[in-house]
Amino acid sequence: MGRVHNFSAGPAVLPVSVLEEAQKELLDYKGVGMSIMEMSHRSQEYEAVQFEAESLLKELLSAPNGYRVLFLGGGAHTQFAAVPLNFLFPDAEADYVITGGWAERAYEEALKLHAVTKLCGKANMASSSKATNFDRIPTRSEIKLSPNPAYVHITSNNTLYGTQWPARPDFGKKTLFADMSSDFLSRPFDLSQFALIYAGAQKNCGPAGVTIVVLREDMIEKANKNIPTMLSYGIHAKNNSRYNTPPVFSIYMVSLVLNWLKNKGGLAAMKKINVEKAGCVYEAIDNSGGFYQGHARKDSRSMMNITFRLPTEELENKFVDEARKSGLVGLKGHRSVGGIRASTYNALPIQACRDLASFMGDFQKNNG
Amino acid sequence: MGRVHNFSAGPAVLPVSVLEEAQKELLDYKGVGMSIMEMSHRSQEYEAVQFEAESLLKELLSAPNGYRVLFLGGGAHTQFAAVPLNFLFPDAEADYVITGGWAERAYEEALKLHAVTKLCGKANMASSSKATNFDRIPTRSEIKLSPNPAYVHITSNNTLYGTQWPARPDFGKKTLFADMSSDFLSRPFDLSQFALIYAGAQKNCGPAGVTIVVLREDMIEKANKNIPTMLSYGIHAKNNSRYNTPPVFSIYMVSLVLNWLKNKGGLAAMKKINVEKAGCVYEAIDNSGGFYQGHARKDSRSMMNITFRLPTEELENKFVDEARKSGLVGLKGHRSVGGIRASTYNALPIQACRDLASFMGDFQKNNG
Repeated sequence: MGRVHNFSAGPAVLPVSVLEEAQKELLDYKGVGMSIMEMSHRSQEYEAVQFEAESLLKELLSAPNGYRVLFLGGGAHTQFAAVPLNFLFPDAEADYVITGGWAERAYEEALKLHAVTKLCGKANMASSSKATNFDRIPTRSEIKLSPNPAYVHITSNNTLYGTQWPARPDFGKKTLFADMSSDFLSRPFDLSQFALIYAGAQKNCGPAGVTIVVLREDMIEKANKNIPTMLSYGIHAKNNSRYNTPPVFSIYMVSLVLNWLKNKGGLAAMKKINVEKAGCVYEAIDNSGGFYQGHARKDSRSMMNITFRLPTEELENKFVDEARKSGLVGLKGHRSVGGIRASTYNALPIQACRDLASFMGDFQKNNG
Repeated sequence: MGRVHNFSAGPAVLPVSVLEEAQKELLDYKGVGMSIMEMSHRSQEYEAVQFEAESLLKELLSAPNGYRVLFLGGGAHTQFAAVPLNFLFPDAEADYVITGGWAERAYEEALKLHAVTKLCGKANMASSSKATNFDRIPTRSEIKLSPNPAYVHITSNNTLYGTQWPARPDFGKKTLFADMSSDFLSRPFDLSQFALIYAGAQKNCGPAGVTIVVLREDMIEKANKNIPTMLSYGIHAKNNSRYNTPPVFSIYMVSLVLNWLKNKGGLAAMKKINVEKAGCVYEAIDNSGGFYQGHARKDSRSMMNITFRLPTEELENKFVDEARKSGLVGLKGHRSVGGIRASTYNALPIQACRDLASFMGDFQKNNG
């Protein structure tokens, strides 16, 4: 086994023990005589897997009563459409805080649905840090909310740019939605402040193929029903995420990851490790005397995706190549920022960050 | 290893050699040092997997030039909406042949989108065998097509009722679409007769979580673009199924199944085996002197799902229980028909059907 340190932004590293468990029972799930992949989604065995994933998730989130968990196909991108179709009624408006590329896509989808389908009301840009290439999370005073929005939509962590909301914004009693795809389950947060959150699993929760939605029950009742059936939260909630065949294997993998997370001590313990992990790498940036230049402003730094540049593109390419040879892979930055991006999700071991920091020091010595 | 004979209607049995290969490389895909599940969907390694799946699929289908293959999330149910949203423009109409429960859902989704979103034109019921509980495929003369439909939609195999179109219907030059979820890749067919087909993978092609769409390129150009982005065939085609993160592991499993299928001799060889497999079970029904009553009319029998009743519900329950104890599982019929359903998809070994036929004989002897 020559496992590498995988800094990929997603799909991303999974816990080795989770992969080993999946491997062990891949042909015979708990002595049933078949793989979990071959099992009816109506079988008792699969039902137990999904039920356990739901209840573990609620436990890890310390979810108050009245929240529902859904496991849906189609990726977080499908939620970009589902959110306005369900909640942005034609006579309403909604506010979007634009902090990165995926926040932009969510906003643009709402705009498009308003303009071309007439099924949705107006989406407002409440704030945008695009002018400075999304290097920061806006301050509260920069965010202009409309008087009575159906919801305010934020993106809790911005994978491409390496920024993250340091805490929940204070939006008073406004209905708050969040795309948490890239930092879900990486730190504790107060779920009661959110009416709806969603997250593609492929960062901190499992493999690609399933999106987790957590929403308040009163939102389900309020939701528009006159929309494509598979985009209706009401339909999925009523059918416990099994209106159609769910992505069984991906949900099974999520259940294994949630068990791993619980054994690790839950979200508070995970946050502590994640801060230490990201800290290693940020320290290497900050102590480089400007050789490594962080993209995100310090007050907006992400604990999940660390983005930085080197003096030249040539050096950046050399950095990525040499890192790969040292078993540090997935470090090439997204084209929207360039340079280097190190993603340090839950399942990445701390040793990976230590090795990266040490590699950064050596690389600078040889090339600085 | 106590693997059972799995007659589940879907998710369903997978080839043992495919599961073994996936198991072997679950922690380290081809020496890359990570699982295929942990790999960026932009990586060369994953790209090669998806590209291979596409080209194997075209080879197995003997696809003429000008067809595109897409791998999409959200299940075939998402296609029930995507089909009318893309092709049933508000001033057009489309014809649906209703041969079972999923055909009905496809039709009802088109009706709903017409009635409540105004984004789609009118869907017509061209024929329905509901009056006789979907026991057969209609004859050509029973199907009333409109003069100029945007498309005619059929469901090639009806999982719940155990019926299957014996051959492509003769609809002249009409644009033909098919939901092939439950018999895709089980027999050869002339792709050039279809403008679009789709199939959830979880019957003959892989695990749940990915839907295969094959469509003619001119359809992509014709498609409506003013619809939710994730339902747009144009968007997915332009981005080679990677507009967003695709269900990587499910597509990888499909690629393994397609390789297995090619090694088995392709679709013609598979049809021969499937006819023999289903033949075993139908023979047991036909030779039972009425103890076992097939649901489907003989001319409409499915080679994939075999549905039958016993004299009483009590006997049916006993049959399912005793079969399970003999290692024959997943035989309980869907509530729409009741009784027994044996699904005999590609990956089910012929021995499973022989064992079932023999069990049926014994059960009748002891209970007839």
